[in-house]
Amino acid sequence: MKPTPALRRNLQWTSTAGAPSIALKERVRRPALLNKLANAQDLVPLFRHDDWLGWSGFTGVGYPKVLPTALADHVEQNKLQGKMKFNLFVGASVGPETEDRWAKLDMISHRAPHQVGKSIAKGINEGRIEFMDKHLSMFAQDLTYGFYTKNKRHPPYDKLDWALIEATDITEEGYIIPGASVGATPEILQTAERIIVEVNTRTPSFEGLHDINEALLPPYRRPYLITHPSARIGMPAIPVDPERIVAIIESDRPDNTGPNAPETPESRLIAKHLLEFFQSEVDAGRLPRNLLPLQSGIGNVANSIIGGLAEGPFKNLQAWTEVLQDTFLGLFDSGKLDFATATSIKFSPEGFQHFYDHWTDYKDKLMLRSQQVANSPEIIRRLGVIAMNTPLEVDMYAHANSTCALGSRMLNGLGGSGDFLRNAKLSIMHTPSVRPSKTDPTGITCIVPFASHIDHTEHDLDIVVTEQGLADLRGLSPRERAPVIIQKCAHPDYRDLLMEYYDRALVECLKKGSAHEPHMLRNAFKMHINLEQNGTMKVKGWD
Amino acid sequence: MKPTPALRRNLQWTSTAGAPSIALKERVRRPALLNKLANAQDLVPLFRHDDWLGWSGFTGVGYPKVLPTALADHVEQNKLQGKMKFNLFVGASVGPETEDRWAKLDMISHRAPHQVGKSIAKGINEGRIEFMDKHLSMFAQDLTYGFYTKNKRHPPYDKLDWALIEATDITEEGYIIPGASVGATPEILQTAERIIVEVNTRTPSFEGLHDINEALLPPYRRPYLITHPSARIGMPAIPVDPERIVAIIESDRPDNTGPNAPETPESRLIAKHLLEFFQSEVDAGRLPRNLLPLQSGIGNVANSIIGGLAEGPFKNLQAWTEVLQDTFLGLFDSGKLDFATATSIKFSPEGFQHFYDHWTDYKDKLMLRSQQVANSPEIIRRLGVIAMNTPLEVDMYAHANSTCALGSRMLNGLGGSGDFLRNAKLSIMHTPSVRPSKTDPTGITCIVPFASHIDHTEHDLDIVVTEQGLADLRGLSPRERAPVIIQKCAHPDYRDLLMEYYDRALVECLKKGSAHEPHMLRNAFKMHINLEQNGTMKVKGWD
Repeated sequence: MKPTPALRRNLQWTSTAGAPSIALKERVRRPALLNKLANAQDLVPLFRHDDWLGWSGFTGVGYPKVLPTALADHVEQNKLQGKMKFNLFVGASVGPETEDRWAKLDMISHRAPHQVGKSIAKGINEGRIEFMDKHLSMFAQDLTYGFYTKNKRHPPYDKLDWALIEATDITEEGYIIPGASVGATPEILQTAERIIVEVNTRTPSFEGLHDINEALLPPYRRPYLITHPSARIGMPAIPVDPERIVAIIESDRPDNTGPNAPETPESRLIAKHLLEFFQSEVDAGRLPRNLLPLQSGIGNVANSIIGGLAEGPFKNLQAWTEVLQDTFLGLFDSGKLDFATATSIKFSPEGFQHFYDHWTDYKDKLMLRSQQVANSPEIIRRLGVIAMNTPLEVDMYAHANSTCALGSRMLNGLGGSGDFLRNAKLSIMHTPSVRPSKTDPTGITCIVPFASHIDHTEHDLDIVVTEQGLADLRGLSPRERAPVIIQKCAHPDYRDLLMEYYDRALVECLKKGSAHEPHMLRNAFKMHINLEQNGTMKVKGWD
Repeated sequence: MKPTPALRRNLQWTSTAGAPSIALKERVRRPALLNKLANAQDLVPLFRHDDWLGWSGFTGVGYPKVLPTALADHVEQNKLQGKMKFNLFVGASVGPETEDRWAKLDMISHRAPHQVGKSIAKGINEGRIEFMDKHLSMFAQDLTYGFYTKNKRHPPYDKLDWALIEATDITEEGYIIPGASVGATPEILQTAERIIVEVNTRTPSFEGLHDINEALLPPYRRPYLITHPSARIGMPAIPVDPERIVAIIESDRPDNTGPNAPETPESRLIAKHLLEFFQSEVDAGRLPRNLLPLQSGIGNVANSIIGGLAEGPFKNLQAWTEVLQDTFLGLFDSGKLDFATATSIKFSPEGFQHFYDHWTDYKDKLMLRSQQVANSPEIIRRLGVIAMNTPLEVDMYAHANSTCALGSRMLNGLGGSGDFLRNAKLSIMHTPSVRPSKTDPTGITCIVPFASHIDHTEHDLDIVVTEQGLADLRGLSPRERAPVIIQKCAHPDYRDLLMEYYDRALVECLKKGSAHEPHMLRNAFKMHINLEQNGTMKVKGWD
């Protein structure tokens, strides 16, 4: 793409919006902003190819819906595919009708730091979208450092051109009250030249659910004075200079969430192993009886664990996590969860309905924070969080791949897994021991000799658990770790193959005097190569 | 090794030490402790095969010298090699006359979390020593969590059997004033059943140089209230229950440090690129004029950088780092360094002499903290540290290997590189572009297609710099990163080979729709395998 000249930008627009609705007037408590009411179509001409955009949103909730849809319609109707591309920064993923549709219409040139959707993954892996995959806690701060916008081909080089933000309320000061996620919205607002706010009058106002702290930069940054998940360190709205708000739009579109991943026999077994492990840690005095604040990822294993806790012996639990799913509602309802904080609540449509219906039961037990705080190494380490995440594969020395299948094909991105696993008191990776390939129901082993991409290192993980069993790696050397991981976690179809790799690598490396972490580099990826060529990781032996 | 039965331990010993020296009486300000004065030989019978020991010490300073030497003499004289092995935990490395001699005498069964020395590396790589390599900030806290001692084969399972600690002073309360390092000494003292203190009367008392904070465990841990490298949050000595002190020994042995690594033309070029980069960041407003607190590793590049800063334009500098070397004295003397804090000062013998001779000039500009604090993600991120470290190799997507040559042979360990690089504002890896192999002066390229071991991921590094040039990776996707790293950093002998790997991997992966991070797994380690077989990484092309 050629550099875009720094044209003087026409920011004139004419509103076709009529008088504000009663619902909108209730939500927008700073009357002057109502004068900026627009229809999305009015604003489409303001956007240019190669603009840098920040959106609100995280894990498919709290994202702008009306204007992104209008821009997509504009591109589609005027056949501008590939001619109107944007650099898109959002805290994490957003609803498929926005980012994934944009990807399908070839409207995205750069994306960071996370994404979900078939078309966007396709765009990344087919070379049309440059995807920058980053720890979610760092993405937000690096944005305020100007580390990304310095790569812009038009000024201002220290700012995003636009912030598109969904609010459920705007205060008298013009401050933004987000919806079901905070994500990187504070930092995006802080670094955007111009702001457009979609005020969502369909969902209730989420006022009181958020804790928004100041985001000062070094050398002026201060400690996060949080010693319990319920601690408040900020205010209930995101401060913003109202003069930078170019327009507001009324939105009545819901967050486009789907159902949660259903549990499976494997996920229940993994949860069982983990709950037994927690009990043994409590018995040994290494965990308090109410455990420590829990972080749990997305997916069926996470749901089985949280579901298992609702039926288990532990009480007065707390959650310090990135995203809350429906199962946390069940854990609240069981009376066992005292408090939960996250940067997003991604409930199913039924989950949201239940949440709104019982708002008063939940509202004092829940808090949403920015992803810079929710995923902060500082707080995760201080609180001693128990972190649980799912990788694509883990190797026999406990290096884990969370992002790239066969080393190259991006799925969704790292997310907050690194923030949590590096800093938690207990860093746990849970995965089924095998996955099906196209031709073999156990064609893919999740325990491999050498992870084909590494996002988390052997220095970070304490526990690996599959439906086969749990490997406690704390304090073990690599030579002690490998047999434990293979024997406890690998699927029986692969156990002997993996032990043979380890045993042969050990013999060869002992001969060479290089046996700290024994490998046969010529065979390290043989299982992966075999999968590509023959549809299964069951190799016939080692070269 | 067979389990050791939990025998009742005889802790009777008879002192052969005479009356305490005047020097010792001045240092040991709790008189009751002088009644426990021993010669090292008196205490040797108290130790048993398979005992778990924690030592003070970090980067070869502040470690116990007399008793470890007596134990080594005992093993050597009685031919107990391999029959009297210990599990050895020290914050980082210690002097070669102790740990390396122990390794040579086959006295070490387990070691964590870092080591330096030919014999100990040999023991690890030949399978006699199990080495657990861990982030230094986590090692200390994991010790207090009981994560390592739970693997003991004899009780108590929540404690080390012995702490061997060097002090330069003992307070009236019996509290320990360390010497030139703090390291993991507070946590080792906290978790040891019995303590032996070597009081070093040869070095001056370091009283006033340390800041020792409480080390509470979750859920009771509190914020580190540090917003400037000079901030004090603790007290000048390490609290300890004097009843657990079994004996004290007088020591007159110096820290066995050698000279610092001399600069080379390459290290000066790397420093030049970096100082120019800092200037451009200041000019762009992304760094303040006095930069931000510096972390600098050990080695010739580090020395060139700090030396370059002494002659450069930046003033009022600060250091938040792990270890201070001689060049920092020069930076102080240049008037450009306002304050430096670390967990260790590893000066050369001449450097220490200079330091003692000008004690009053330095003492208010220096502070030593525990490695849990010095390497704390919380503080490194808050202060916005500029972190600079040397890897073995970096790959074209910015994954870095800091520990294992050819994927398997351990050198020294991770150290604090992960603590700093993950959390710094600017995470910088500096390395020469090539190293000599046995047969080829440019036989080893430090820029490779796929790092043969990964300690730091693409998600962590901002800058890679060699004598060839500097690659600024901030905000770049993997496909944008690879050409920049190859063109800016790779040695000319390897540039075309690496670009050919990237180009072919890109074409192949685009065809498969998996081109986020293009690789040819069958060729990923071809350069490493060629080095083993043919003594050079210059392959003839790609399969």
